[in-house]
Amino acid sequence: MIVIIKPHATPEQLEHVLDRIRQLGLQPMVSTGSERTVVGVLGDERLLAEGALESLPAVEQVMPILKPYKLVSREFKATDTVVQVRGIPFGGRQIQVIAGPCSVETPEQMRAAAAGVKEAGCRLMRGGAFKPRTSPYTFQGVGDEGLDYFRDAADAYDLPIVTELMDVRKIDLFLEKGVDIIQIGTRNMQNFDLLKEVGRLDVPVILKRGMSATIKEWLMAAEYIAAHGNHRIIFAERGIRTFETAYRNVLDVTAIPVMKRETHLPIIVDPSHAGGKAWLVPHLARAAIAAGADGLLVETHPCPEEAWCDADQALSPAQLGTLMGDLRKVAEAIGREL
Amino acid sequence: MIVIIKPHATPEQLEHVLDRIRQLGLQPMVSTGSERTVVGVLGDERLLAEGALESLPAVEQVMPILKPYKLVSREFKATDTVVQVRGIPFGGRQIQVIAGPCSVETPEQMRAAAAGVKEAGCRLMRGGAFKPRTSPYTFQGVGDEGLDYFRDAADAYDLPIVTELMDVRKIDLFLEKGVDIIQIGTRNMQNFDLLKEVGRLDVPVILKRGMSATIKEWLMAAEYIAAHGNHRIIFAERGIRTFETAYRNVLDVTAIPVMKRETHLPIIVDPSHAGGKAWLVPHLARAAIAAGADGLLVETHPCPEEAWCDADQALSPAQLGTLMGDLRKVAEAIGREL
Amino acid sequence: MIVIIKPHATPEQLEHVLDRIRQLGLQPMVSTGSERTVVGVLGDERLLAEGALESLPAVEQVMPILKPYKLVSREFKATDTVVQVRGIPFGGRQIQVIAGPCSVETPEQMRAAAAGVKEAGCRLMRGGAFKPRTSPYTFQGVGDEGLDYFRDAADAYDLPIVTELMDVRKIDLFLEKGVDIIQIGTRNMQNFDLLKEVGRLDVPVILKRGMSATIKEWLMAAEYIAAHGNHRIIFAERGIRTFETAYRNVLDVTAIPVMKRETHLPIIVDPSHAGGKAWLVPHLARAAIAAGADGLLVETHPCPEEAWCDADQALSPAQLGTLMGDLRKVAEAIGREL
Amino acid sequence: MIVIIKPHATPEQLEHVLDRIRQLGLQPMVSTGSERTVVGVLGDERLLAEGALESLPAVEQVMPILKPYKLVSREFKATDTVVQVRGIPFGGRQIQVIAGPCSVETPEQMRAAAAGVKEAGCRLMRGGAFKPRTSPYTFQGVGDEGLDYFRDAADAYDLPIVTELMDVRKIDLFLEKGVDIIQIGTRNMQNFDLLKEVGRLDVPVILKRGMSATIKEWLMAAEYIAAHGNHRIIFAERGIRTFETAYRNVLDVTAIPVMKRETHLPIIVDPSHAGGKAWLVPHLARAAIAAGADGLLVETHPCPEEAWCDADQALSPAQLGTLMGDLRKVAEAIGREL
Repeated sequence: MIVIIKPHATPEQLEHVLDRIRQLGLQPMVSTGSERTVVGVLGDERLLAEGALESLPAVEQVMPILKPYKLVSREFKATDTVVQVRGIPFGGRQIQVIAGPCSVETPEQMRAAAAGVKEAGCRLMRGGAFKPRTSPYTFQGVGDEGLDYFRDAADAYDLPIVTELMDVRKIDLFLEKGVDIIQIGTRNMQNFDLLKEVGRLDVPVILKRGMSATIKEWLMAAEYIAAHGNHRIIFAERGIRTFETAYRNVLDVTAIPVMKRETHLPIIVDPSHAGGKAWLVPHLARAAIAAGADGLLVETHPCPEEAWCDADQALSPAQLGTLMGDLRKVAEAIGREL
Repeated sequence: MIVIIKPHATPEQLEHVLDRIRQLGLQPMVSTGSERTVVGVLGDERLLAEGALESLPAVEQVMPILKPYKLVSREFKATDTVVQVRGIPFGGRQIQVIAGPCSVETPEQMRAAAAGVKEAGCRLMRGGAFKPRTSPYTFQGVGDEGLDYFRDAADAYDLPIVTELMDVRKIDLFLEKGVDIIQIGTRNMQNFDLLKEVGRLDVPVILKRGMSATIKEWLMAAEYIAAHGNHRIIFAERGIRTFETAYRNVLDVTAIPVMKRETHLPIIVDPSHAGGKAWLVPHLARAAIAAGADGLLVETHPCPEEAWCDADQALSPAQLGTLMGDLRKVAEAIGREL
Repeated sequence: MIVIIKPHATPEQLEHVLDRIRQLGLQPMVSTGSERTVVGVLGDERLLAEGALESLPAVEQVMPILKPYKLVSREFKATDTVVQVRGIPFGGRQIQVIAGPCSVETPEQMRAAAAGVKEAGCRLMRGGAFKPRTSPYTFQGVGDEGLDYFRDAADAYDLPIVTELMDVRKIDLFLEKGVDIIQIGTRNMQNFDLLKEVGRLDVPVILKRGMSATIKEWLMAAEYIAAHGNHRIIFAERGIRTFETAYRNVLDVTAIPVMKRETHLPIIVDPSHAGGKAWLVPHLARAAIAAGADGLLVETHPCPEEAWCDADQALSPAQLGTLMGDLRKVAEAIGREL
Repeated sequence: MIVIIKPHATPEQLEHVLDRIRQLGLQPMVSTGSERTVVGVLGDERLLAEGALESLPAVEQVMPILKPYKLVSREFKATDTVVQVRGIPFGGRQIQVIAGPCSVETPEQMRAAAAGVKEAGCRLMRGGAFKPRTSPYTFQGVGDEGLDYFRDAADAYDLPIVTELMDVRKIDLFLEKGVDIIQIGTRNMQNFDLLKEVGRLDVPVILKRGMSATIKEWLMAAEYIAAHGNHRIIFAERGIRTFETAYRNVLDVTAIPVMKRETHLPIIVDPSHAGGKAWLVPHLARAAIAAGADGLLVETHPCPEEAWCDADQALSPAQLGTLMGDLRKVAEAIGREL
């Protein structure tokens, strides 16, 4: 059940609703969005007699939700949600390309990267200070100071920054450095304690799909974030794991229209991790836009062959510029803009 | 080893090469293309002493092939092969959309379907007279006479026809009816006896990817056809099987650029079987074209809700017309034409 | 719908039932088992008014079948079916190990192999005269004469033979040579024309699971055979395709109890193809027996390192003997015998 | 590189080795096991000139490791490691069955569960106080106090306890309550910050396989734990994700012998989560033991139909008792004991 609270209900009236839910032996979960407040009800819903809540002054509507995900579903909100990031819209007519290096390396590298990102016409920048690596013996990211390098470089070009959070203990640092979008990586898509914590923040979240997560599990992971109060969620498809070994992952373009139908939230695509090879990126990026993606996450590096990680998949600044030009044409062909 | 025969070698000279190969305890496999004849050598290649064949008058070159697929590889032929079907090119600048119903039903249905296909601007027509169905208790196709309905309807609109062959015993019928492209379905991708037989024909073949076939297995299946002499092969990606259950298959767009790099032969995409739902077809079709596909296989039916099979995934003639218009824009955006 | 015919119905009475079904616009499919005759009804079952058939003298019962597979389901026959092969039971208390080389090579090799199989205590022998190979340039089996080598070697030790059929045009040869069990391989699990033809024979069939076939598809493939009249079907699990690359396939032991619950027919396991390595075979074979399999298909070769195909996975005669001893203990531990 | 330190090296000598490594621009990673201390070297190993370390007094041997996992590999340690948990051995001749409810519910339920576990002859108990659930609206575990219920119930029957850790912030609580084995769940197999933290503890760890983790990734995840100093790791196979939907996961029995070959550490199996149904548990448990597993994790509940989560897959105490009897016979058949 979802209880939708009237726009002008007072805090006391809201509290009254919550008390009533608790008296019934159920647990209320308040989620305050920019437009309205909703209360999810946790527990055996049969305890909720018909009419038990509808009559309260603060209650606009009590609705059953048929899907296991609620707040993120189209059923709950029919119109597209546009997630604003410092004035840059995700989920509207304009397509956003977030570009940057796999990992933050040095202040110089980040400055050069930021210049390339801006020059190519991208509006946001990505980069990892903390890296989830399969082996404990490989480079794990430069850590805390990496966020400073990133912040400084991006600020010089007025680019909002996107970076991955892996550990709840780093949240204060992320807030202090003013990270503009927090990315939850594929390996943490079901790290529920992490999801709950970012659900309590007022920072947009990019939620990558787990490497073998179903559409339903992905939506449920986002529901964890939304249920704890943060509705500014952007999904990111990054390729799924299959039997095929000729490329790293299989970019699941079908997920794009299916997600757009199931949820009101935006979805972007990471063609760099999907294919694992720079030469594949333009093909996959075009396909993603053509299938209806709201944006892209693209790896670029001032000098790809010197990248400290995933060197194979980064575009040079020149390649990024060419890609942006190509994507602009595809975007226009489908009635959108880049 | 592949022995490339000189363009003007005489039959006697060729025979001499074959004899020499047999004398060495190896087995020659002649493959006569429109441009040149090549002889694959089967057996332990170490028996082939250096220079044993190069000196023969008919031999242009003896080349080792490093990939397990040879005749279909880019290594063997660097330039794109354009497969001509009654003057319609597959693999060039122009993108081909083959449309038609899942199954041949009646003469009337086929005539209406052909009209719709032509009207929408498609240049070839598809339809199945023999249907591979998971259950023995469902409609198995109208059979032999279906080819007549199909042939008549398509001829009225001057459309070459594409239809699936499942049984070697139907080859004579297919030849008699002048099937323009023989389709090998996903379940028969590794039906090697069938592949060998179509390899002996002078009819273009669409080879669908097995539902969990790797890129390498798919190329090897085509190699069976090519090694028996038929080089007019068109690959068709139709979605692969994964853990995801929200849609029928996962359209593997990454396969498109990867195949274009590995083979000189054209590749088309079947968005209808990939997604399994008509509403998904436009999204997947656009993505396929944007990723570089040379064509599409699209299901359409004069009256989708009355289709005898796969009713959920067929487009109406009007929807097909709209799709063609949309695809034309995407094709132009990437420098091709529809 | 399935119409169960009374045990002593006359041919005329049966024909009457079929006529009635045809008059209703439906198609009857007669399946004559050793115990009773059943008639499957194909078409829109709503045409079958209640009572339309029950009143006919030959009809014992008309039953709806809720599963898409009918004749092979437990719902249709609750008790285990024991498939007899020249007096050797599959599906009872005794577990059968069918052993032999991957491919028939020479009369000598087959004789040595047969001796080893018999000596180890196995009751049936396997071997392929026709081999489905991924590459057209590798050994494709010795062909027709291979069946003679096999027949002779096996007869010398009184071993029934199991061999793979890939092509409908070889059926007469198989019948002539008296193949005791026809194997349908993983790549042909959905070669429906082949299934229909073996469905018309009076020879037991081993139906291997397709490499990414679901349980339901596998049962439906068997239903093709049963619906055409042949009820002597033995399922064979041989590993499925997954993301894992450390071994060839993943042996799906869960399929064993699930199949035993869904169908009354026996199920055996091929640990050799599942793992792809001889050293894995004993581990997987023990697991299969422990999980409830009715038998095994094990590759053995008089001299594994000289085998013409799959040399890595064949056991030596000595290893096969040891394995049989080990399996006997596991069989006894679960109340069965080997 | 791995530097093996001599058994009686002094702390100063060890410090000397670490200094030398740092001087070379590399990073040492000390791992102190019960038998010896090893130092992993992180960074570009080409900086390590031959002989640079071998001559130091504390160094026994410098060895390159060819596999990406080092400390956990058989290459590093040839003999089986037996992980002792309060005197109960994992990885020796004796097989351990860890049983208990999916989730801790109440003190009464835990007491009844502990009685059943002990009565059945199991030597350790499992139970979750914190539950990773796909939906935010379902029961998330009773939390902190659950560990008290569990501890009290298990202590009454002298059973060491196994419970899942999902959040680094709960480590102090786990230590305080004396959790005997910390379980890392399938969704956290690549939660690298969590792995590093448990790597710093002196508590045995059960590391479940990620739902689509390869053998190599699983070993690398364990390497994270080992590289940070904790070598008491027990792997747990719990089924992998595939295309099959007839059961929850596919129990990968092949992983058992393959892991035993690749690592010296013990491996156990969770048949309850693999199959997702209680009736499947005995079949899968027998198969796991027969394939060589060192133990099992089995769900049981005093009253399965009343379980707060995964009610479908829990065995009753009586069923657990029967299972133990059956498994004992299989264990003996393969020369082990239960």
